[in-house]
Amino acid sequence: MDEQVQQTRNRRLPREVREREILAAAIRVFSANGYHNASMDEISSLAGVSKPMIYSYLGAKEDLFTICIRREAHKLVASIGREIPTEAAPDIQLWHGLLGALRFIGEHRDSWRVLHRQAQSQGQPFVGEIAQLREQAIGLVAGLLTAAAEHRQLDGDATEALQALAAALVGATESIADWWLDHPETSARKLASWLMNMVWMGFGDLVQGSVWTPPPASDTA
Amino acid sequence: MDEQVQQTRNRRLPREVREREILAAAIRVFSANGYHNASMDEISSLAGVSKPMIYSYLGAKEDLFTICIRREAHKLVASIGREIPTEAAPDIQLWHGLLGALRFIGEHRDSWRVLHRQAQSQGQPFVGEIAQLREQAIGLVAGLLTAAAEHRQLDGDATEALQALAAALVGATESIADWWLDHPETSARKLASWLMNMVWMGFGDLVQGSVWTPPPASDTA
Repeated sequence: MDEQVQQTRNRRLPREVREREILAAAIRVFSANGYHNASMDEISSLAGVSKPMIYSYLGAKEDLFTICIRREAHKLVASIGREIPTEAAPDIQLWHGLLGALRFIGEHRDSWRVLHRQAQSQGQPFVGEIAQLREQAIGLVAGLLTAAAEHRQLDGDATEALQALAAALVGATESIADWWLDHPETSARKLASWLMNMVWMGFGDLVQGSVWTPPPASDTA
Repeated sequence: MDEQVQQTRNRRLPREVREREILAAAIRVFSANGYHNASMDEISSLAGVSKPMIYSYLGAKEDLFTICIRREAHKLVASIGREIPTEAAPDIQLWHGLLGALRFIGEHRDSWRVLHRQAQSQGQPFVGEIAQLREQAIGLVAGLLTAAAEHRQLDGDATEALQALAAALVGATESIADWWLDHPETSARKLASWLMNMVWMGFGDLVQGSVWTPPPASDTA
C-alpha cells in the first residue's frame, strides 16, 4: 500500500473509532429517552467524547439522529440480504430473510426502537428515511415471492398481488418485532417460525394441525 | 318521547350537525396538508363554520386533530367488529373482519391517511391514541384466532404465538392498506382476498396453485 495513503488512514482511524462510539451512545440515548428528551450532554458523557467534538464530527442532535437512522436501517437491510441463500428453495429463502431481520432486531433492540418507534413519531425528514427503508425491504420480499412463483404463469393481477403481499409481509414483520419489544423472552428463531407458519402454511393448515418446520438450528440457521 | 327531551334534542341538533361538518372538513384538510400545514382558516372555510365557532365547539387545532383520530379510530374498529359473523367458520369470520377493515379504509381514505400516516408522525399524544387502536384490533384478531384453534390443545407457547400472529396480521393489514393508498384502483375485496390467501392458505399452497376463495360477493360480502 502507498505509504502516504497508509499514513492518512492511520491518522483518520481515531476519528472513525470516535464516530462509532458517538453513534453507539446516541442510539442508546435516543432509544431510552426518545428524540426530544435525548440530551447531547448525555450522549457526550456516555461516549466519552466532548460535545464540541461531537458537533465538529457529526453535527447537531438532528444530524446525529438522521445518521443513526440511515446507518441502522442500512445495517438491517444488509443483514436480511446477507442471510438469504439465493440458490435455496423459496421457503428456505424466506425463512432466512425473516430470521435475518428478526435476529438483527433482537441483537440491536435499541436500533429497532429508534427506527420503528421513535423515527416514525418525529415527522419529516425522519419518516421519509424510514419510508425508503421499507421500500427496500418490500422490493427484496417482492423479488423473493416473484421468484418463488416463477414456474407459474403470473398475470398482471398476480404480479400486483405479490407486490401488495410483500408490503403486507414487511408490515407483519415490523408489527411482530414491535410485539417482541414487549415480550423480549421469545427467541428470534421462535418468532420467525411463527411468522413462517402464518405466511407459508397459513392459518388454514395451522388449524388442521400441520406445521412448517424450519431446518435444524445447528445446520443452516 | 317526553316533549321536553324532544325539544332539547331539536335545539342541540344544529350544533351536532355543525360539529360533524367541522370534523369532516378537518379530516379532509389534515389528510391533504398534514397536521402542521393544516390551517384553521381552511377548515373553517370548507366547513362553512366561523373560526370562533370551531374554537367554541371543539377547541384549537390540536383538539380537533385528537377528536378526529379518536372518532375515526373508533369507527374503524367498530366497522370491523360489526362485519364479523360470530357464528360462522373461522375463515369466514376472518374474511369479514379483513374486508370490514379494508372497506372502511377504502371508503374513508382521508381518515386512514390521517390515522396511519399523519397521526403516527406527530409524536405524542397522537401516537398513544393510535397505539390504543392497534391494541384493540390485535385483541379482536387474537380472540378470533384463539376461537379458531379452540378444538386443539393449545399450550402456553401456542397461545403466545397466536397473540404475536394477531399483531403480525394487524401489521400486515395496515401495511397493505398503506400500499393501497398508492394503488387506489384495486378493490377492497381483491385486497382482502389476497391477504386472506397469504394468511389462511399460506404461500406454500399459493406456490402449488391452490387458492382460498371468498364466498360470492352477492351473498355475504
